[in-house]
Amino acid sequence: MDLVALEEIRGLKYRYARTLDLKRWDEFAEVFTEDATANYGTKATSEPLTLEGRDAIVSYMRDALGGNIITVHFCAQPEIEINGDTAAGTWCFEDTVIVPDHRVMIKGSAYYEDSYRRENGVWRISHIGYVRTYELMVSFDDMPSLQLLANRWSEDVPQPQA
Amino acid sequence: MDLVALEEIRGLKYRYARTLDLKRWDEFAEVFTEDATANYGTKATSEPLTLEGRDAIVSYMRDALGGNIITVHFCAQPEIEINGDTAAGTWCFEDTVIVPDHRVMIKGSAYYEDSYRRENGVWRISHIGYVRTYELMVSFDDMPSLQLLANRWSEDVPQPQA
Amino acid sequence: MDLVALEEIRGLKYRYARTLDLKRWDEFAEVFTEDATANYGTKATSEPLTLEGRDAIVSYMRDALGGNIITVHFCAQPEIEINGDTAAGTWCFEDTVIVPDHRVMIKGSAYYEDSYRRENGVWRISHIGYVRTYELMVSFDDMPSLQLLANRWSEDVPQPQA
Repeated sequence: MDLVALEEIRGLKYRYARTLDLKRWDEFAEVFTEDATANYGTKATSEPLTLEGRDAIVSYMRDALGGNIITVHFCAQPEIEINGDTAAGTWCFEDTVIVPDHRVMIKGSAYYEDSYRRENGVWRISHIGYVRTYELMVSFDDMPSLQLLANRWSEDVPQPQA
Repeated sequence: MDLVALEEIRGLKYRYARTLDLKRWDEFAEVFTEDATANYGTKATSEPLTLEGRDAIVSYMRDALGGNIITVHFCAQPEIEINGDTAAGTWCFEDTVIVPDHRVMIKGSAYYEDSYRRENGVWRISHIGYVRTYELMVSFDDMPSLQLLANRWSEDVPQPQA
Repeated sequence: MDLVALEEIRGLKYRYARTLDLKRWDEFAEVFTEDATANYGTKATSEPLTLEGRDAIVSYMRDALGGNIITVHFCAQPEIEINGDTAAGTWCFEDTVIVPDHRVMIKGSAYYEDSYRRENGVWRISHIGYVRTYELMVSFDDMPSLQLLANRWSEDVPQPQA
C-alpha cells in the first residue's frame, strides 16, 4: 500500500473542494491535468454537464459560482485504488448551494467517481464525475424566520421577514 | 502505529456506508463477520434495535431501506485503536433519510462505536452500534416549495405544490 | 512525509470535536496547550470571539454549550503541514446547533485554520480559529411538523404542534 500517494491524492481532493468553495480559481486550476474531463449534472432536471479540458472546467465554475453564491462541497469516505501513476477514487459528498438573490437553498449528496494521474511527481485530477444520491431545493419563502447570519461573499445577508 | 491496518479499517467503514446507501446488499454483507452484532435505534422513539449475525443485519437493512427510500450515512472523524487482530473505533456521522412516499425527511447525527476483527488477513465489522446526538423529522408539508430534483432510486420525484 | 504525526494530528482534531459535542470538558481541556488561543465568531452578527489560554476556552464552551443544547461539529478535509514540532492545518466543517428551549436551529460551514504544537511527544492545539463560509438560523415555528426524535441531553424533546 503506497501510503504517501494515498495522502497526496486525498490532499488533492481536499484542495479541489476548498479552492472551489473559496472561489480561488487560479489554485483551483492547478488541481486538474490539462486534459481533465468533468461530468456533473442532475438527471432529473437536465442533461448531465460534460466539460473537456482544465480551462473549460475552470471557466464554467468561475462563471457559475461567482458573486455572492455560497457553495460547500463537503467530501469524505475516500476509497482510493492506486495503480502506478494513475489512480481511481470514490468519495461521498454533501453539497449545499445558497443563492441569496434567488432566495433558494439546494442540498444534496452524491458519490464522486474520479481518476487521478501523476505527472512529474504531482498528482492531479484527470477526470471528475458523480452520480447523485439525491438533490433537493427549497425556497427561503417557506422559512419566514430564516436569517443568513453570515455569508463569506457578502455583507448584505437576507433578514427575517417578520 | 500500524498505518496499513488503519487504512484498511477506514476503507472497511467507507465500504459499509457506500454499499448501504447504494443498496448493494451482497457487497454490504461482505463487510461483516458472520457473528457480527448491531445495535441501532433511537432512545426517544423506540427501544434500541439489536440484530445478531450478519444475515440478520443484512436482511433488516434490505427490507427497511429498499424501494425509493434515500439514505445517506456520512461518516468521518475516525478514532481507531488497533490491538493485534481486533480493533475498536468511534466515528461521527450525519444521516439523512428521505421517504418520498411518506413525504418526510429525517436528519440526525450520532457516534458509532464499532469493533473490528481481522480474519485471514481481512478486516471486518464484528460489532456496530451508535449513540444518537440528535435526530429530527420534518414533513415536506412544511416546505411547499420543496422540489426533490434527483433521487437515485426513482424518476418520479415530488414536485412543488404551488 | 511524517505519516505518524499526520495521524496523530488528525486524531487530535477528532478528539476536539467529539469531546466538545459530547460535553466531556475534562478531556476537552486536554486537547489544548496551556497557552492556546481561539478565535471564533460570526462577522455578520457580532465581533469575533477571542479567547486566550486553555482555561478560558474550556470555561467559555462549558458555559455556552451546557444543558440540553445539541451541537455537532463535523470536521473533514484535513490539509496539514508539519514542520518539526509545530504544524498548521485547515479543515472544512459543518456545524449544527439546536437550542430546544429557544426552538431554533443554526447550521453553517467554515474553514478551521489551526496551529498545533508537540510537547513531550504529544500534539496539542495551540491555536484554533475559523472563517465562516455561511451560517443560518431558522425557528422551529416555520416547521410545525418538526419532531426532535432524539436529544442525547434530554428526554424532553419538542413534539409536533399539530
